[in-house]
Amino acid sequence: MAASKPNPAPSNLLKVVVVGGGFGGLDLVRHLASAPVAITLVDRNNHHVFQPLLYQVATAALPPADIAQPIRDLLKGSNITVRLDEAVGLDLHRRQLKLRSGGMLEYDVLVLASGVEYTYFGHNEWAAFAPSLKTVKDARDIRERLLSAFEDAENTSDLDVRRRLLTFVLVGGGPTGVELAGSIAELARYALRKNFKHFDPASARVILVESEPRLLSGFTDDLADYALRALQRLHVEIRLSARVSSIDADGVRVGAEKIAAGLVIWCAGVKGTKPASWLPVTLTKHGTVPVSADLSVPGHSNIFVIGDLASVQSSSGEPLPQVAAVAKQEAHYVAEVLRSRLNQTKPPAPFTYRNYGMLAVVGRSAAVAQFNRIRLKGTVGWLVWGLAHIFFLIGFRNRTAVFVSWFWEWWTNRRGARLIIGSIAAVQGKTDQDKSQQGPGATEAGTS
Amino acid sequence: MAASKPNPAPSNLLKVVVVGGGFGGLDLVRHLASAPVAITLVDRNNHHVFQPLLYQVATAALPPADIAQPIRDLLKGSNITVRLDEAVGLDLHRRQLKLRSGGMLEYDVLVLASGVEYTYFGHNEWAAFAPSLKTVKDARDIRERLLSAFEDAENTSDLDVRRRLLTFVLVGGGPTGVELAGSIAELARYALRKNFKHFDPASARVILVESEPRLLSGFTDDLADYALRALQRLHVEIRLSARVSSIDADGVRVGAEKIAAGLVIWCAGVKGTKPASWLPVTLTKHGTVPVSADLSVPGHSNIFVIGDLASVQSSSGEPLPQVAAVAKQEAHYVAEVLRSRLNQTKPPAPFTYRNYGMLAVVGRSAAVAQFNRIRLKGTVGWLVWGLAHIFFLIGFRNRTAVFVSWFWEWWTNRRGARLIIGSIAAVQGKTDQDKSQQGPGATEAGTS
Repeated sequence: MAASKPNPAPSNLLKVVVVGGGFGGLDLVRHLASAPVAITLVDRNNHHVFQPLLYQVATAALPPADIAQPIRDLLKGSNITVRLDEAVGLDLHRRQLKLRSGGMLEYDVLVLASGVEYTYFGHNEWAAFAPSLKTVKDARDIRERLLSAFEDAENTSDLDVRRRLLTFVLVGGGPTGVELAGSIAELARYALRKNFKHFDPASARVILVESEPRLLSGFTDDLADYALRALQRLHVEIRLSARVSSIDADGVRVGAEKIAAGLVIWCAGVKGTKPASWLPVTLTKHGTVPVSADLSVPGHSNIFVIGDLASVQSSSGEPLPQVAAVAKQEAHYVAEVLRSRLNQTKPPAPFTYRNYGMLAVVGRSAAVAQFNRIRLKGTVGWLVWGLAHIFFLIGFRNRTAVFVSWFWEWWTNRRGARLIIGSIAAVQGKTDQDKSQQGPGATEAGTS
Repeated sequence: MAASKPNPAPSNLLKVVVVGGGFGGLDLVRHLASAPVAITLVDRNNHHVFQPLLYQVATAALPPADIAQPIRDLLKGSNITVRLDEAVGLDLHRRQLKLRSGGMLEYDVLVLASGVEYTYFGHNEWAAFAPSLKTVKDARDIRERLLSAFEDAENTSDLDVRRRLLTFVLVGGGPTGVELAGSIAELARYALRKNFKHFDPASARVILVESEPRLLSGFTDDLADYALRALQRLHVEIRLSARVSSIDADGVRVGAEKIAAGLVIWCAGVKGTKPASWLPVTLTKHGTVPVSADLSVPGHSNIFVIGDLASVQSSSGEPLPQVAAVAKQEAHYVAEVLRSRLNQTKPPAPFTYRNYGMLAVVGRSAAVAQFNRIRLKGTVGWLVWGLAHIFFLIGFRNRTAVFVSWFWEWWTNRRGARLIIGSIAAVQGKTDQDKSQQGPGATEAGTS
């Protein structure tokens, strides 16, 4: 990158810089689109991701483009600048955000909406063997490893190797772990049926490991119990109150048991992203930022934190869940706070979260939904889940495409995005790191 | 890979091994699906690609999953085995195909359908700077470089750098070069409109370089002339009778002119893939295999070559074009030859190609189509082109998805797959290899 241009906003407008184009950052900018401010949104990806469906990309049900949209295309307002760049530091004194490209962004108001990332509880060495699912790239990598495990199982005659390749372990029984477990089990039992000659894909083992005594801690007991039974009907093995003590190339150790696994996916714990650490406040033990009642950083009324990175208490004293609905309501609230400052009107009352409901899907015709006192499960929960997700998807094209994909998948029991796009060398190298049988120059030979 | 299992076919069936799951290989296997033979198809990718629309993946109009389908899902017959592997050698004496995984496939009949790959006319060093478009991975890489060029142009204030980034050169004026040029020009002029603050994307230059004095050598003069004028209306600069003499990180030299370019795409020449070189025959100058009248290799009646890798003369003595229709007819013919051998009936007459027509698209409402004496261009040609491509796409899901994508794109002038999925580090590293401003550990900082 050559020398970056300084923030191009006219100097008379309030400069609002937003870090992160997830649900929070995107909605905040949209709410401010008509305000007399100059907004710059920084994201290191060119696209906004509909995170709740990322697990469907990881399990070959949807292509990435169906759940991602270019941020530039979503934010075309004349007072909005979108930068594909990465925030790497903060100068509180000069009110400047440092960018990886070498540039600087001056701000009057800074909003951090960069979310959380997976943490391996001090075992960063596990990350190489147990990928997590946060970005489209993560989802694509997991998809390729998952599909390659079945391909490698077809190409081996060693039954132990095959058994290892066809064992998939999900670490963490929250919504992501539950949804992945159900979707992988359905992939193996239905979508891949009759695809292989040397084994029955339904023989694949899917193991869900949760350290708490129950799944889905955010849901009521009976819904969690329903999810557990729905997973068991798909032959998912569930280990509750079980802790992972090591992960390596061969698999995972759960308590005293060593499980040889072809793919371990980490869905266990998250921590705040780096920008939180630049703030002069004590973070929570999860690395998130305890914010004031107006979602600003204590002592810094011009810096706000929203979405998963913010730690906000509900009226009952519980921390708010890290879900899209919270981020969107916080975005709307901060937009109101900024409007009241611009108009010099009375600031809004302290932020409160209105919980409209929670959803998680287990598989075909099986989901749980919790709306205050209304609790839905089974086919009704599943239809509500599907409609809600299509409704909240951004853009007509994505809604139509996802609807077509789902209808086709429901009708045929097949999956629409079963592509291994990496080269065979990369795939074989990845899934069989310990063995090397590839001759030199083999990339030359072409089998189209 | 552990020790590979030998070919699992019962020994009493004729073992047919097919290398390559493109149009030729796939159709051959389908035609033989009910025959008393044991078929193994080897491909190094898990998916069949609808190559004619690959340029739309490269230009963000379609996601990869819309034009690719898992080969296993397409070929589920009980006498068919699909192997994700790569042919790396041939033992003619033992009738064995060597695989990269270390395994071997015994064959009674071998069909090579591994196609062609791009050749840089002895300048392999150009490949690093001028990618070509043959696989889904190629298409995805080109898409990311193309979109990143616009992002980098937004982040720089150096006008020379921006001008270079926004100059796209296509080398080769065949259908791929023409279709890419039209699609990139439309991306810049329509789909990206109002997406950037520091420049007008319509200022991007698209340059098409062709060494012959006209475009689209397979089409009639008037259709080629129409394509040229349609491209010029999109402000594509066309250099005819122009030769590329060098390509490096800064751009391309065409004759005496040095063109600084952000992305050069190679669409110029192809050569036969490696498997051709294992045959004891003299190849054509393009590395393709001159086959007998029954498409077998001279002197080896149990080895056939079909598709782009085969060199077949038309009745007028011209070599047949390297298009899907030729490969599909050859596949059907070889299936007939094998059936006649199995049934000990009279072999079919020598292969002849029936030319039903050729199509190439220039852009929105502009395509050329040539069916014997009927020649279509403009909107009619474009509609015929679109219908033909949707008709030939495999599977209801892909047809529906492509139809939705196209309708949406036509209606909104936007593109549905504008994703840069590689990390920002990878993208910046790729497009700005000469400059390195990335601090260490920068991948840690999260902006969601």
